[in-house]
Amino acid sequence: MSLKTQITALLGIEHPILLAPMAGVSGSQLTSAVSAAGGLGLLGGGYCHRDWIRQELDALQGTFFGVGLITWALDKDPEVLEMVLAYEPEAVFLSFGDIGPYVQRIQGTGARVIAQVQTLAGAQEAAAHGADIIVAQGTEAGGHGGARATLPLVAAVVDAVSDRPVLAAGGIADGRGLAAALMLGAQGVVCGTAFCASDEGLNHTRAKSAMIQATGDDTLRSTVFDLARGVDWSGDWKLRSLANDFTARWHNDLDAFRRHLAAEQVRYSQAREAGNFQEAAVIVGEAVDLVRATAPARKIVSAMVREAQDCLKTAPKFLEISDQPSTRPERYRM
Amino acid sequence: MSLKTQITALLGIEHPILLAPMAGVSGSQLTSAVSAAGGLGLLGGGYCHRDWIRQELDALQGTFFGVGLITWALDKDPEVLEMVLAYEPEAVFLSFGDIGPYVQRIQGTGARVIAQVQTLAGAQEAAAHGADIIVAQGTEAGGHGGARATLPLVAAVVDAVSDRPVLAAGGIADGRGLAAALMLGAQGVVCGTAFCASDEGLNHTRAKSAMIQATGDDTLRSTVFDLARGVDWSGDWKLRSLANDFTARWHNDLDAFRRHLAAEQVRYSQAREAGNFQEAAVIVGEAVDLVRATAPARKIVSAMVREAQDCLKTAPKFLEISDQPSTRPERYRM
Repeated sequence: MSLKTQITALLGIEHPILLAPMAGVSGSQLTSAVSAAGGLGLLGGGYCHRDWIRQELDALQGTFFGVGLITWALDKDPEVLEMVLAYEPEAVFLSFGDIGPYVQRIQGTGARVIAQVQTLAGAQEAAAHGADIIVAQGTEAGGHGGARATLPLVAAVVDAVSDRPVLAAGGIADGRGLAAALMLGAQGVVCGTAFCASDEGLNHTRAKSAMIQATGDDTLRSTVFDLARGVDWSGDWKLRSLANDFTARWHNDLDAFRRHLAAEQVRYSQAREAGNFQEAAVIVGEAVDLVRATAPARKIVSAMVREAQDCLKTAPKFLEISDQPSTRPERYRM
Repeated sequence: MSLKTQITALLGIEHPILLAPMAGVSGSQLTSAVSAAGGLGLLGGGYCHRDWIRQELDALQGTFFGVGLITWALDKDPEVLEMVLAYEPEAVFLSFGDIGPYVQRIQGTGARVIAQVQTLAGAQEAAAHGADIIVAQGTEAGGHGGARATLPLVAAVVDAVSDRPVLAAGGIADGRGLAAALMLGAQGVVCGTAFCASDEGLNHTRAKSAMIQATGDDTLRSTVFDLARGVDWSGDWKLRSLANDFTARWHNDLDAFRRHLAAEQVRYSQAREAGNFQEAAVIVGEAVDLVRATAPARKIVSAMVREAQDCLKTAPKFLEISDQPSTRPERYRM
């Protein structure tokens, strides 16, 4: 049994589940595994580092996949798009910037443009630029994102861009979340955290362990790791990760952090290389509560689909045609 | 037709919709109207101002209602609880503080204890204290709240306190949101923003107009209005409202604001009295996108129920038993 929505028809997939193109996590292996499981795997092209992307695309050649790029990074090296398109991806997923310059070029190859947005205004802009699919990403998502939360954002975006399919991203890591997204009017979901501790994900083993231990109470959205890594993100998009010793020291004292920046960048880089995740970022979303073990991506997808099917199949159980009077206490008056 | 869940059975209501006990908005009229529409109205007892609460409870006497109180405010004047319980509410809704001292006293009168929490840890604590019903409130909610978002928080709380009903709060203002909450495992919803512009709500007419104009992109969570009003909220809970001239001036410069506090408090109070909502707070959540007109609470409830019923009734349409091969392009390989 599969799940059928506008997005499964549009992309020719079995289940309305897309892998979030997580930079440093969604490599060719995870991308392939999600596609093989009936979803759409999206390679995490991230900051547009050509050599890495080429290597991973070589591994994906001839398979069914899409590619995600950070739009503002693509602006700095637009030729990366040509390199990507030469591998004939099914879709290019763009987030964090103006998609205007890229839409026609991508669509000209037959690939779909998937635009991820963090606000209602962003969704309206992406629709005006002609995006084929709009992803409404809530602040509960891991990695970079905005301030609005998934549940109300999805409903508002669906209403605003009703002529094209909307996917929900942020906070969805099981079948209940998938079923909820469909109730909101989304045609499917984009999942990152659900696959963060997958066998195929490129996260460090100790980062995966930290995720499995953590709860969603333990995450925060901050600029501190971007400063530490020297990555030039604008203030509008911050990074959600687990809180750790590093964020405890600096998240609430960014002025002091900036004064010690050079030394802290060195320390940070050393911590990352050493796999010390009390200092280095474990990038994950609030749905980490639902990540309880490592597993192959295939199992993650099939468990999600099965659970969503159960939720949807039994949804009508909540309906009751009542020919009986209300069960209210007598002292209730109409 | 009604919607049946554990919570409708437990509370003896027709629809699993509770009015958020919004201080300054949920007076006796709105409370009555939501109960009369088949939900449970909760009087916004808020900061425990005795005279106002007594006046509203007098108006509610003999009807079906609950009362909400801010827990830390109750701590300062615990006798308010006795006054409230004398009016025989169906439930007492507590949020923002330790419910431990109050649970047994409330339950001893036959009333239910509804505990609203903002974290997974808070839910576990409320369950350990014996709360009858737990409300998982996401950061997208209007008014005071925490940092976690509704969608992943509800699923995590349901898993953690599976022996008692969980309600979803934050971001839910239509039937899609209600249906989504049920998919997540919640037994119902608590709605504030949905009723903020209701005819019966005590908001200023100009505040209601501002809500109808606004989108969810226009809200923010800040401490600035609590400082301006001189209300002693802890840093953990901030207030979500519309952004306006006041937040534009001070939200990102709290140090300067504290230096001008005395003068700004006077100006703020004057703006409030004048109904100047470019300066005064319009307290509303991200679901304000879905608030498009003023309406009687009865209509809001019935529209929400009807839409949720449609979503739930048609949920199985997403299921497809596929005996056909995948529709994927040929170059996809398993």
